[in-house]
Amino acid sequence: MNKNIIYVDHAATTYVKPEVFEEMRPYFTDLFGNPSSIYSLGRESKKAIENARSQIAYCLGVHPTEIYFTGSGTEADNWAIKGAAYANRKKGKHLITSSIEHHAVLHCFQFLEKEGFEVTYLPVNEEGLINPDDLAKAIRPDTTLISIMFANNEIGTIQPIKELAAIAKEKGVIFHTDAVQAMGNIDIKAKDLNIDLLSMSAHKFYGPKGVGALYIRKGVRIDNFVHGGAQERNKRAGTENVAGVVGMAAALKLAYENLEEYNRHLRKLSDRFINSVMERIPYVRLNGNREKRLPGNVNLSFRFVEGESLLLMLDMKGIQASSGSACTSGSLDPSHVLLAIGLSHEIAHGSLRISFGERNTEEEVDYIVDNLVEIVGKLRQMSPLYEDFIKKGGQ
Amino acid sequence: MNKNIIYVDHAATTYVKPEVFEEMRPYFTDLFGNPSSIYSLGRESKKAIENARSQIAYCLGVHPTEIYFTGSGTEADNWAIKGAAYANRKKGKHLITSSIEHHAVLHCFQFLEKEGFEVTYLPVNEEGLINPDDLAKAIRPDTTLISIMFANNEIGTIQPIKELAAIAKEKGVIFHTDAVQAMGNIDIKAKDLNIDLLSMSAHKFYGPKGVGALYIRKGVRIDNFVHGGAQERNKRAGTENVAGVVGMAAALKLAYENLEEYNRHLRKLSDRFINSVMERIPYVRLNGNREKRLPGNVNLSFRFVEGESLLLMLDMKGIQASSGSACTSGSLDPSHVLLAIGLSHEIAHGSLRISFGERNTEEEVDYIVDNLVEIVGKLRQMSPLYEDFIKKGGQ
Repeated sequence: MNKNIIYVDHAATTYVKPEVFEEMRPYFTDLFGNPSSIYSLGRESKKAIENARSQIAYCLGVHPTEIYFTGSGTEADNWAIKGAAYANRKKGKHLITSSIEHHAVLHCFQFLEKEGFEVTYLPVNEEGLINPDDLAKAIRPDTTLISIMFANNEIGTIQPIKELAAIAKEKGVIFHTDAVQAMGNIDIKAKDLNIDLLSMSAHKFYGPKGVGALYIRKGVRIDNFVHGGAQERNKRAGTENVAGVVGMAAALKLAYENLEEYNRHLRKLSDRFINSVMERIPYVRLNGNREKRLPGNVNLSFRFVEGESLLLMLDMKGIQASSGSACTSGSLDPSHVLLAIGLSHEIAHGSLRISFGERNTEEEVDYIVDNLVEIVGKLRQMSPLYEDFIKKGGQ
Repeated sequence: MNKNIIYVDHAATTYVKPEVFEEMRPYFTDLFGNPSSIYSLGRESKKAIENARSQIAYCLGVHPTEIYFTGSGTEADNWAIKGAAYANRKKGKHLITSSIEHHAVLHCFQFLEKEGFEVTYLPVNEEGLINPDDLAKAIRPDTTLISIMFANNEIGTIQPIKELAAIAKEKGVIFHTDAVQAMGNIDIKAKDLNIDLLSMSAHKFYGPKGVGALYIRKGVRIDNFVHGGAQERNKRAGTENVAGVVGMAAALKLAYENLEEYNRHLRKLSDRFINSVMERIPYVRLNGNREKRLPGNVNLSFRFVEGESLLLMLDMKGIQASSGSACTSGSLDPSHVLLAIGLSHEIAHGSLRISFGERNTEEEVDYIVDNLVEIVGKLRQMSPLYEDFIKKGGQ
């Protein structure tokens, strides 16, 4: 990466750590066997995959046979939601999710609605938190699946997953969590938390793009999503991405080993950033809960500022940040997450997501804040709304 | 790779060519931006993906906007078949495929049968070829999709795709071809051939595992398969596997540039191998058509020999070959392809697939044949069936 760049969009994607890349490397050009082949070169690939599976299972506190590799976190979400909905459709066709899920989840539910399922979208409070009572009340006799994200990708809010999953368990409803944004930041032990299905994606925790995994608790009824060969014990077809799987496991192992230190580092940067912005820039709102959030996530709304312009001007200063989800860029609609926590269209449009990573420093935080002060100031001076607002005495 | 290994299973998977790997490398640790991000690091990834798309489209003779990236060839098959079947289900629910398709195709059709679709499985002759008349006769007013593989993964037979696709076009039925095994071996120009949908997988032509593509001719009605973010122009969700996509394009470009030379090389090895085996080993059958086959593919059935034992003994000599599809290994059933071309269970069980690649040499061919002569001889000596057969005068 260019040294003049300050990358603070780790929620969008991370680089592959050099030591993770070194573990992947032999599987491209040398140990390239098809894991389904029975000769030595195939068996080596098979062993690499099974080691990776065990490492990931160990991190999650589950059995290796409960881990299935996919081509992305999105595929894992599609599999979990469509697979569980279809496998249990004779039991019922009512499903529950939240209004602030990632599109990889929301669009699956919208697809299922067209196919005759009924979906309840739970609201969130102004900090993006789901009320467990709302979940309990929404469950019906024909409810077969609940899908609630572990932590939000835009505002970083961490949901009370333990409480929510306990309610699902008590009512005998399958509980899926999209943990794509949370994995590598939080010590998730899926079994202890009573999670039935959990999705993850390697490129969010310093692993490679193009590989994900789905945890399927033993005994959960779920249909296959990708049909074909006998890979993944007949549950997910397609030649395994051996290098990718090895990289995902190596990255997750490193993440779990350094979780506390990493969290401390991120929290320090986020706190410094939030405190400094709040002190130096007026008319700013921190979105999400101050404490129950991913340690590296900061989501701010600047009144009288257009988010897109803000991002472009930050980019010119070498600061690479985001307005929210990368997966919806190109859309002019404001974030559905920010609308769900009660922001107006106008305020939602003036939002900035900063997500710190392991290499960011306090000096970079200060550099970003200095630039933000300047850029927000400039953009506001150009805003007729701001002019009006100031003329009226800033009310 | 261990230098004492002779790898002749390129139909199962290939290594990533070193020059392909070098093109991929920067996208893991340095140019790691999310292609959906609007800052410079994201734009560089986006550019890499669009370059890759253009390269692949150029090879296939189609427009770049008709190429969509997937996580595997299997996913491309699933998308093509389920997507086209569902998108056109109001028009009709009759689908046509062949009896020798890869499981990535067959299992999709079996899934669709359970969902209320009707499927005609075209037979093949003893060489594995489909008769275009059979296809013409099978088409009904409610037929919406035909899926015929370009070349078979086990016996290498190349189908008369141009004729078959022309029939589909004339009747206004969508024509999909699983070209996973053919790509990189044959100069496929999808538009000229009237193909509507075409699946490919990078790891079959010296690209990485975990990445594939689907060509969707402009105007073809097809539903999305993986729902979520806005990637791939809203048609296939999930953060793009940038390094993988770059590798696939680089590998395909190299393949198309060297197609003639590569074919000549493979054909020379295959011919030498077939002629030598036929001369030195009795009671052997070459499966598939002698000419209309992938140049590097040889599929042989040895009477009175158990394929699994043959493979293990070859492996002990450093020869890595296959009994057929890697994707069905672990299954004790004989190959559905070999049964479809009329082999008995017993003969089908004694089959060997050798698939040569760019690094194989004539010396290796001779080494394999020498070992085959010895191993087949040994295994037959241990076979009570062979003993009987010889006692009865070899009839």
